[in-house]
Amino acid sequence: MLVPELRQRVYKANMDLPVHGLVKFTWGNVSAIDREKGLIVIKPSGVPYEELSPENMVVSDLEGNVVEGDLNPSSDLPTHVELYKAFAEVGGIVHTHSTEGVAWAQAGRDIPCYGTTHADTFYGAIPCARALTPEEINGAYEKETGKVIIEEFQKRSLDPMAVAGVTVRNHGPFSWGKDEQAAVYNAVVLEETARMARYTEGINPDVKEVPQALKDKHYLRKHGKNAYYGQKSLTH
Amino acid sequence: MLVPELRQRVYKANMDLPVHGLVKFTWGNVSAIDREKGLIVIKPSGVPYEELSPENMVVSDLEGNVVEGDLNPSSDLPTHVELYKAFAEVGGIVHTHSTEGVAWAQAGRDIPCYGTTHADTFYGAIPCARALTPEEINGAYEKETGKVIIEEFQKRSLDPMAVAGVTVRNHGPFSWGKDEQAAVYNAVVLEETARMARYTEGINPDVKEVPQALKDKHYLRKHGKNAYYGQKSLTH
Amino acid sequence: MLVPELRQRVYKANMDLPVHGLVKFTWGNVSAIDREKGLIVIKPSGVPYEELSPENMVVSDLEGNVVEGDLNPSSDLPTHVELYKAFAEVGGIVHTHSTEGVAWAQAGRDIPCYGTTHADTFYGAIPCARALTPEEINGAYEKETGKVIIEEFQKRSLDPMAVAGVTVRNHGPFSWGKDEQAAVYNAVVLEETARMARYTEGINPDVKEVPQALKDKHYLRKHGKNAYYGQKSLTH
Amino acid sequence: MLVPELRQRVYKANMDLPVHGLVKFTWGNVSAIDREKGLIVIKPSGVPYEELSPENMVVSDLEGNVVEGDLNPSSDLPTHVELYKAFAEVGGIVHTHSTEGVAWAQAGRDIPCYGTTHADTFYGAIPCARALTPEEINGAYEKETGKVIIEEFQKRSLDPMAVAGVTVRNHGPFSWGKDEQAAVYNAVVLEETARMARYTEGINPDVKEVPQALKDKHYLRKHGKNAYYGQKSLTH
Repeated sequence: MLVPELRQRVYKANMDLPVHGLVKFTWGNVSAIDREKGLIVIKPSGVPYEELSPENMVVSDLEGNVVEGDLNPSSDLPTHVELYKAFAEVGGIVHTHSTEGVAWAQAGRDIPCYGTTHADTFYGAIPCARALTPEEINGAYEKETGKVIIEEFQKRSLDPMAVAGVTVRNHGPFSWGKDEQAAVYNAVVLEETARMARYTEGINPDVKEVPQALKDKHYLRKHGKNAYYGQKSLTH
Repeated sequence: MLVPELRQRVYKANMDLPVHGLVKFTWGNVSAIDREKGLIVIKPSGVPYEELSPENMVVSDLEGNVVEGDLNPSSDLPTHVELYKAFAEVGGIVHTHSTEGVAWAQAGRDIPCYGTTHADTFYGAIPCARALTPEEINGAYEKETGKVIIEEFQKRSLDPMAVAGVTVRNHGPFSWGKDEQAAVYNAVVLEETARMARYTEGINPDVKEVPQALKDKHYLRKHGKNAYYGQKSLTH
Repeated sequence: MLVPELRQRVYKANMDLPVHGLVKFTWGNVSAIDREKGLIVIKPSGVPYEELSPENMVVSDLEGNVVEGDLNPSSDLPTHVELYKAFAEVGGIVHTHSTEGVAWAQAGRDIPCYGTTHADTFYGAIPCARALTPEEINGAYEKETGKVIIEEFQKRSLDPMAVAGVTVRNHGPFSWGKDEQAAVYNAVVLEETARMARYTEGINPDVKEVPQALKDKHYLRKHGKNAYYGQKSLTH
Repeated sequence: MLVPELRQRVYKANMDLPVHGLVKFTWGNVSAIDREKGLIVIKPSGVPYEELSPENMVVSDLEGNVVEGDLNPSSDLPTHVELYKAFAEVGGIVHTHSTEGVAWAQAGRDIPCYGTTHADTFYGAIPCARALTPEEINGAYEKETGKVIIEEFQKRSLDPMAVAGVTVRNHGPFSWGKDEQAAVYNAVVLEETARMARYTEGINPDVKEVPQALKDKHYLRKHGKNAYYGQKSLTH
């Protein structure tokens, strides 16, 4: 079997989605990539979570061709493929229809950075990518979804490792990270900060985003070369 | 015993309602029909979920006359009967007082199609059927409820298999499907898309429904003859 | 021991409050009355739910004097006493700080009857009783709370068995019924209809209460002498 | 080992945060102080809750220097240190990113006292401390956070034992108490009253705070020298 360890990891990450309350039924998928071998492992399409196993994950190449597995891959595989091709540091991707993320996608608005919970993980607003055109919808729909995300990041000159998530207008959230566990973490944070932002605007409709200094401080406290949060460097 | 397998299936589907968080106390019911035999199986009225069993389900004919069972059928049976008569492809029906569905029913508004989560299951807005007149309320109330739903679908020229759910004004949601499991699935999706739509309007009061191309794409991706979601056709 | 069976029932009803998600910490209490013996059983004050038992319930007379029990009764006992004295058919009372009920109490508004979920249990809006005056607050506060509830029902000519609940302004919900189980049921319905009403107004700020015919139909369907909901009269 | 009992208590209090639904991942921390020995025990930084133990809690002195423990202390330790220094009666401190508390912090508004649930625990509004300046953010950030809280209490002449919580603008809630269990209790109440206040304003945008007489009554009923709630003084 190809990439047995990656199958195990991707299986585990998929099973984490319902644990974090991010999916109903089969509405979510996680993939990860082995860049050396050029292989992607992804959830099969439409299979209930209780029937998933490391063995029924699907393996594809970087063109989205299935190279191992008896089941159809998630129909979102072409979106994942586009993102892996364009974002070289991404090792894992998550797509869900989590309630709060979908609400912002449907509202067609970026999720503003209103506080440190957001700033600890995402460096600035989480963008809402534009709606697909009728031509894109009727063409290679899932592939075009990936291209619209990439276009949005290029248009705004965003670093996908600093803003590791997006919502696609009328659709829902995607997130990613250096591996599939980071991608799941970012999916949870996206959902929670989306919820907090909605509540915040309800309490104060005139609220503004946090100052730039706070965005810098919190993101770099955890992610910069002088990061001091957690246990990376023992200090005493 | 008549239709023992259908009793088992309807029992199971009723027990799924609290699992999905759609009911409090006894506020929900599922039925299914054996069209060949002309028999409907439905939950008994007012019996707590923990006391339900395949054996205490109630069997009626297509006029709503009980033909097997010691308990009263759900008081909503006449509504189910009307829908089975009018919608020939329907095999199962669910009625609940789920919170979000009821809120839209009470607000008297259709649940708009704001995104793909909705469009994957319902082809366009989920209609809110008109309130019953005082005469209908004081007449054969539950039967009239069914007739009002049917009237709404006829007036709008809706295909009940493409829009397999409705809310009745001042009351709550009904959903259906080819069988009782599909009806439960649609009840869960109705509740979740109702929640998402409420949040969406909170974030952006000026939001519009999704373009027609997206409605077509998502519904047909899962339901048309060229459906490619899930495992129906293995492709490699 | 006096009234051992009533101690058991009141203990059970108190334990149901956290099961239904109506209380945090010790913020709720249930009592019941044995009208023949003139004895009330109520939860002790400030004791965590996991330490409650039938034996540490407190028994008082109809003046609120403790006649059996080593612990202080709930500080709300004088409110319960007033209600038992004024509402002759009431056999059980519940007070909680459940989130949605408190929100309406704090907002100072009646919970409107927007649909059948409400109308099945409460015959019309659930009133919000007026705020206590500074004199009442600084006097026999808990007793005055009961008197304010009674005043509200008298002023509006409400039948406490048809509208078996209230919120007290700036405080929270009280409910009651023929016994303590009915009171708990009504507490759950009050909380759920409060939630639905809040959502409903969010979706449609111009929503109106349901027509009188619907209030009559649903309440009498379950509570009148021609009630046909549930299993009280077998019909086949 | 220093302060083994305090390690055990602080461990227990940290584990209570996820039980009360106040934290995701590692987003929260509890500390407590032994004032005689001048030692603070706090959660280590970034360690998942399931890996916490009494033994991996971190002990620091009153300057925030680690005196026992192999792991980094919570990065918020300097905030805790400032509060212990300024608020002499405080024995335990909690910081979380609980959803509702964060929403008010992000909205930049005090949590108003709209009812008795709030008034039973907090004597008046829970203040929102001002945002840190860019200089404070780029300086000793966590220490400055503590100083901003203290400044807010001094500016408003608030007694930190009567209003035992705060939110810091753009950040989130802090609470405290005579010990770590009281601090956790206050964190739960802050979150619940924040939720209730948000709902209340949704139902009635013109709502006002409760009268002073009610604030006095409820706070003093539980906290004054004539307190009569709970089991402190047996009365019969």
